[in-house]
Amino acid sequence: MTFIEKLNAAWTSRNSLLCVGLDPDLKKFPAELQGKPDAIFEFCRAIIDATADAACAFKPQIAYFAALGAEEQLERICAYLRSQYPDIPLVLDAKRGDIGATAEQYAREAFERYDADVVTVSPYMGWDSVSPYLEWKDRGVIVLCRTSNAGGSDLQFLEVDGKPLYQHVARLVAEKWNTNGQCGLVVGATFPQELAQVRAIIGDMPLLVPGVGAQGGDVQATVNAGKTASGTGMMINSSRAILYAKPEAGEDFAAAARRVAIETRDAINRFR
Amino acid sequence: MTFIEKLNAAWTSRNSLLCVGLDPDLKKFPAELQGKPDAIFEFCRAIIDATADAACAFKPQIAYFAALGAEEQLERICAYLRSQYPDIPLVLDAKRGDIGATAEQYAREAFERYDADVVTVSPYMGWDSVSPYLEWKDRGVIVLCRTSNAGGSDLQFLEVDGKPLYQHVARLVAEKWNTNGQCGLVVGATFPQELAQVRAIIGDMPLLVPGVGAQGGDVQATVNAGKTASGTGMMINSSRAILYAKPEAGEDFAAAARRVAIETRDAINRFR
Repeated sequence: MTFIEKLNAAWTSRNSLLCVGLDPDLKKFPAELQGKPDAIFEFCRAIIDATADAACAFKPQIAYFAALGAEEQLERICAYLRSQYPDIPLVLDAKRGDIGATAEQYAREAFERYDADVVTVSPYMGWDSVSPYLEWKDRGVIVLCRTSNAGGSDLQFLEVDGKPLYQHVARLVAEKWNTNGQCGLVVGATFPQELAQVRAIIGDMPLLVPGVGAQGGDVQATVNAGKTASGTGMMINSSRAILYAKPEAGEDFAAAARRVAIETRDAINRFR
Repeated sequence: MTFIEKLNAAWTSRNSLLCVGLDPDLKKFPAELQGKPDAIFEFCRAIIDATADAACAFKPQIAYFAALGAEEQLERICAYLRSQYPDIPLVLDAKRGDIGATAEQYAREAFERYDADVVTVSPYMGWDSVSPYLEWKDRGVIVLCRTSNAGGSDLQFLEVDGKPLYQHVARLVAEKWNTNGQCGLVVGATFPQELAQVRAIIGDMPLLVPGVGAQGGDVQATVNAGKTASGTGMMINSSRAILYAKPEAGEDFAAAARRVAIETRDAINRFR
């Protein structure tokens, strides 16, 4: 089964476009996990179990693990996801960008060590920084296109042939790099009009859309702008708003995360 | 002492512009290290000791460690460098590119965990993907500008305001991002004319120049194109040609690496 087949199946079976981002930040952990040596794994496992039936994908952000020297816990989180929820795509958010032999090493990291279905990559170094990942025929890459941060415009909005650079990247990936249906794009939720322009360029190619939730993107505008004709085509990511949801009376952190994940999934589904 | 002061001092005291890249590839290791649990650390330590007096910098490529789950050995290699050769800049080649809170995590990885002086980053996500690193005032970033791979042209050669994108990146970094002298650029050796154009844009800002050695860049053309008025301004990287130099009679792998490192340093120095 290819990455896109797996994602299509997850969109349908789980009736969700919500991607739950796993950005473990020790400072924000609940009191009962503070100071425990296995806290990152336990936190992520609880979040995964609490939100899996509302999610079409999980997305660990490797920086949070790398800063803490917690790669071994990330390995176990990924193994847990693969064994307990084998139908849910695992997106490794690493934004890798390097060439040839080095990219092969990063592909091994993503697809062997962490057994991810798909990894985020940067387009700046071009085709031969992406092609080594595509040797793994059942896996994929999600290429940075238009990001939702303030500085995203510094390069992405530069005009190339009368169009902003990010549209050129969208066209490059859709027309040249995505020969086997292994590619997707990252497009932020904060610019729905640009999301619509990218969708018009790329057909049904999947999008990873950060910027809903803590980053404040508008759900209705995002879904309208980015969905395909079948009402899918997007993994709409929320990390902090779910992970660190404030518990209401009687809830622990996982129940609060579950509540916000379901609310977010349902908010998305209202506009599909 | 800032990163650039440390690099300036190393250029002078070691009379070298050679950066030795540490890309440990188990398949290429000498027979005596094959199968040893600590092989990566032992290999890199031997290379470091053999080449330190010919080098102005060392550059571990993190992908090679990440693919093998060998972060702990990378930590020890970095600690060894800092304790034994505290005057030699440590460049962590990671090509990170992410925003805000995530970039802060990558900065902690590079500057706390590995204690690097400088880390390579991608410009695609713009200023707020670079600024978190610059909070570390004695450290720096080296921003991808013009890379030596075939696909490097896919984005970097796109025309923006009549100039290729990589020149826009060079100008952006030199004029806006490098406010405290903490930035450098990656520019490949395979296009000396482009290297000269970048040098004309950026003044004395340091360059990391891969593509000499195994990648085949011409040393004379590279040095002429990239040096500053003082005959420095570049860390010219060689990895595989040094690491996996073929031993001559009576040499072990480290002696062979030393011979090639000295030859490369001397070849560079002839044209400074």
